[in-house]
Amino acid sequence: MAACVDGSLERPFARCRIMTRPVFRPIFLTLALCSLIPAQSNPAAAAAKTWRESHEREILSEFRDLLAIPDIASDSANIRRNAEFIRTMYERRGVTMRIVADPGANPIVVGEIRAPGASRTIALYAHYDGQPLDPKEWVTPPFEPTLRDAPLERDGRIIPFASATFPLNPEYRLYARSASDDKAPIVAMATAIDALRAAGTKLRSNIRFVFEGEEEAGSPNLERVIAAHRDLFAADLWLICDGPVAQTRQQLIAFGARGIVQTDITTYGPRRELHSGHYGNWAPNPAMMLARLLASMKDDSGRVLINGFYDGIEPLSATEKRAIAESPDVDSDLRKELWLGSTESSPRRLIELLQLPSLNVRGLASSRIGAQASNVIPSTATAALDIRLVKGMDFHRITERLIDHVRRQGYFVTDAEPNAETRMAHERVARIVAHEGAYNAVRTSMDLPISQEIIRVVESARGPSVRVPTMGGSVPLEMIERAAGTRTITIPIANHDNSQHSFNENIRIHNLWDGIELMAALIAM
Amino acid sequence: MAACVDGSLERPFARCRIMTRPVFRPIFLTLALCSLIPAQSNPAAAAAKTWRESHEREILSEFRDLLAIPDIASDSANIRRNAEFIRTMYERRGVTMRIVADPGANPIVVGEIRAPGASRTIALYAHYDGQPLDPKEWVTPPFEPTLRDAPLERDGRIIPFASATFPLNPEYRLYARSASDDKAPIVAMATAIDALRAAGTKLRSNIRFVFEGEEEAGSPNLERVIAAHRDLFAADLWLICDGPVAQTRQQLIAFGARGIVQTDITTYGPRRELHSGHYGNWAPNPAMMLARLLASMKDDSGRVLINGFYDGIEPLSATEKRAIAESPDVDSDLRKELWLGSTESSPRRLIELLQLPSLNVRGLASSRIGAQASNVIPSTATAALDIRLVKGMDFHRITERLIDHVRRQGYFVTDAEPNAETRMAHERVARIVAHEGAYNAVRTSMDLPISQEIIRVVESARGPSVRVPTMGGSVPLEMIERAAGTRTITIPIANHDNSQHSFNENIRIHNLWDGIELMAALIAM
Repeated sequence: MAACVDGSLERPFARCRIMTRPVFRPIFLTLALCSLIPAQSNPAAAAAKTWRESHEREILSEFRDLLAIPDIASDSANIRRNAEFIRTMYERRGVTMRIVADPGANPIVVGEIRAPGASRTIALYAHYDGQPLDPKEWVTPPFEPTLRDAPLERDGRIIPFASATFPLNPEYRLYARSASDDKAPIVAMATAIDALRAAGTKLRSNIRFVFEGEEEAGSPNLERVIAAHRDLFAADLWLICDGPVAQTRQQLIAFGARGIVQTDITTYGPRRELHSGHYGNWAPNPAMMLARLLASMKDDSGRVLINGFYDGIEPLSATEKRAIAESPDVDSDLRKELWLGSTESSPRRLIELLQLPSLNVRGLASSRIGAQASNVIPSTATAALDIRLVKGMDFHRITERLIDHVRRQGYFVTDAEPNAETRMAHERVARIVAHEGAYNAVRTSMDLPISQEIIRVVESARGPSVRVPTMGGSVPLEMIERAAGTRTITIPIANHDNSQHSFNENIRIHNLWDGIELMAALIAM
Repeated sequence: MAACVDGSLERPFARCRIMTRPVFRPIFLTLALCSLIPAQSNPAAAAAKTWRESHEREILSEFRDLLAIPDIASDSANIRRNAEFIRTMYERRGVTMRIVADPGANPIVVGEIRAPGASRTIALYAHYDGQPLDPKEWVTPPFEPTLRDAPLERDGRIIPFASATFPLNPEYRLYARSASDDKAPIVAMATAIDALRAAGTKLRSNIRFVFEGEEEAGSPNLERVIAAHRDLFAADLWLICDGPVAQTRQQLIAFGARGIVQTDITTYGPRRELHSGHYGNWAPNPAMMLARLLASMKDDSGRVLINGFYDGIEPLSATEKRAIAESPDVDSDLRKELWLGSTESSPRRLIELLQLPSLNVRGLASSRIGAQASNVIPSTATAALDIRLVKGMDFHRITERLIDHVRRQGYFVTDAEPNAETRMAHERVARIVAHEGAYNAVRTSMDLPISQEIIRVVESARGPSVRVPTMGGSVPLEMIERAAGTRTITIPIANHDNSQHSFNENIRIHNLWDGIELMAALIAM
């Protein structure tokens, strides 16, 4: 796979779009605009900043076009449109792209830039699919990118794109599904290429781009596809561009990420909903059963009560413990921002707790509430759970332990919809369905030379960083490491308050600008 | 309020529709068709049966027309259409009707038949509004009455009305919202008037009809409207025609009904949904909090753990205890029908448990489950509860006790949506909203002469009855008794397996036929 831009970004090939050099801006203006940005000693990042300042409108326009393509992993037609869009986007920049479309898998869009004489290859990963959603919950449609002059929570008003003035106020937000998670890095990397080319920056590493299309569906095929095309994916290090930066707005470097298991638990009451007056006190209530079952799983302080849940966890090294100790204390600000009167396992800090596994109820439903509620004993009740794993835990074993726990609460457990016979044969029946796409946590040692180099490059571009051994969110790093024979470090760019995975997802414009500079520094490292 | 039919149902007034006398049917045919009906010694009931057998098509047609009018209490326009329809329906039978439409209340449709020389007045109550619903849950639209040759659960096939053959197979079901709850009695009473007129039956009691239009909304105005028009509603006894008969298909007579309090409890987590990876273990999960809260309210055996929940309950009399002991044991058949592997408070029987108060979770919701689930920590979680009360309990006090219980679990309790300040000031915040329309239980002594007479009349029409001191379901008997200065006895006609209050509500045709005979016997008593 040859690259149009092949290491010397000075030399535009005939088939590449010719980029104009950025207009000079006096330093004092730049400083005034960016007084909050820490000192930047990285020349690639500085070049990216200069470039961005005179191309904000074009960057935003390309980003909007990408966000306007619906991107739920199950929506194959639109997923394909996203992949084609990204291919074209990078091809325009001279990167020869390839769409790896294996049967049964959403396409992975890959690209490569070879640097003559480079002795190593760095891969940059992002995903172009977004979390499933319910459009009714969104204030503006999820695939109609909408600019606001502040977050919705602070009554941000819509700024029509036609009337936006540039340079943009970097505190503006762009609302759309995947604005943060995870299309922003795709646009940031593309813009970084433009900027490096304009600055004539010479690359030192071969660079690969890998854009996945089903990460939010649990990356069910990533490992298989990488393994089948290992030459396209091999690298000394994969930089995973996903997730949010620190709540202080400092750059975060995560040396690992938690693994994940998702399960649905359904409890069963009467075959059909019953009148709660005529049967209440006699027919078992599956919602109450589910409440008891969930309550049995965690104690008041947030500790998971499933037997063996914490077994086998690999302890943190001295460097990792020090990184946590040195991380800024954001908890009290966060509590204020999130209206929290308390936190689990208080007074332990967020960053510390994310180094542990968690069990989370991500959704609950049984019959109806609100205006549609009626006086029934529900027939079933369902909880959607996610368990986050840390290094040393095995997702198969954790799923088994969860099932064992439910059994110990007196349930007959099945993974299929129980029929009449099953339901009558047991006092309590629970259906537990473990979703596909579970994976384990991984953690790259902070003491490795490449880890130390990444810290230096990132800090030269973005100032003092927050370094976490394990990021709270899950990315399929295990599969990547195994299939591509590599190690991973995660470099997110999104603002922490981006409503990622929920409705009204957004990106703070400042974070997109920062991301462009960071990507330039990493591509040039 | 003069009645066209005024006690001597022989004398059709000029403005009444002329009813033809029923065609004679040989006794052996009648017996063959109705071999499952117990011996019937009541002449009014027998006349109703004869009449019905030759008018099934017309009865069904009128019933369908009534069911086709949407009847959710909040749908004022359609509620008004229902009221007008019922007024016309009874006026056609010579009953002078009146619509009592007080400001802010759904109309109550009332009518009266005076029997010359009668020394007492019997009121017959039913309601024409239906439970709220979600049409998506229904197999056929809730307001398009659909005939099936068996229940849906037994794969009943649709019988188009045009091709139905009469006499109808009495095991057929008619599916529609309010088919059982509670429009069937309205049609049964109207048909009973036709039959009594045709048979020339002379009435002995003044009869009132009272059809309410917001019972499923908790009868928020019933007491006020009755009190404001006491002359229209006064009676020696109100017969409440609502609810299901016994599971054995025997006629049920309930001398009281449980009261009801409905509340919604909402727990609060972060201000907005958070990514469960990046915050899971630290941000409190309102779904888990709600689970723990609900679990704290009931023990494993179904006993409610709220302090003082069972205080003040009026004990059952010897007659009441005997009635319960004599009631048929339906539990094991019911368990089979409902696919239940266990029941609460086993081995105590359903009828026995319905004499106690209950606390029921009627709905649960937090974020999303299924295909729309996403990996979030929900922002709120809500449970819709209903508490059923028995005689001696006070709904105000029970609501207070529920609130106290939640407080004792460490919650700050508010009835308004808590703002940022409130949420940050307390470790745990719960919003408890008690719905309007709560009321207490009432119980009429089985030992009263009028109670004993009702038992005799009902059994002469429908064979051995099941007599329960308190029916499980709630009807606003307390308000009726207080406002109309009367006592109440409940005589339901619907099949127990009618999916009342849920989707796919239906009535078994046999129950409608039985109801017509029962109403004739009661009107003629």
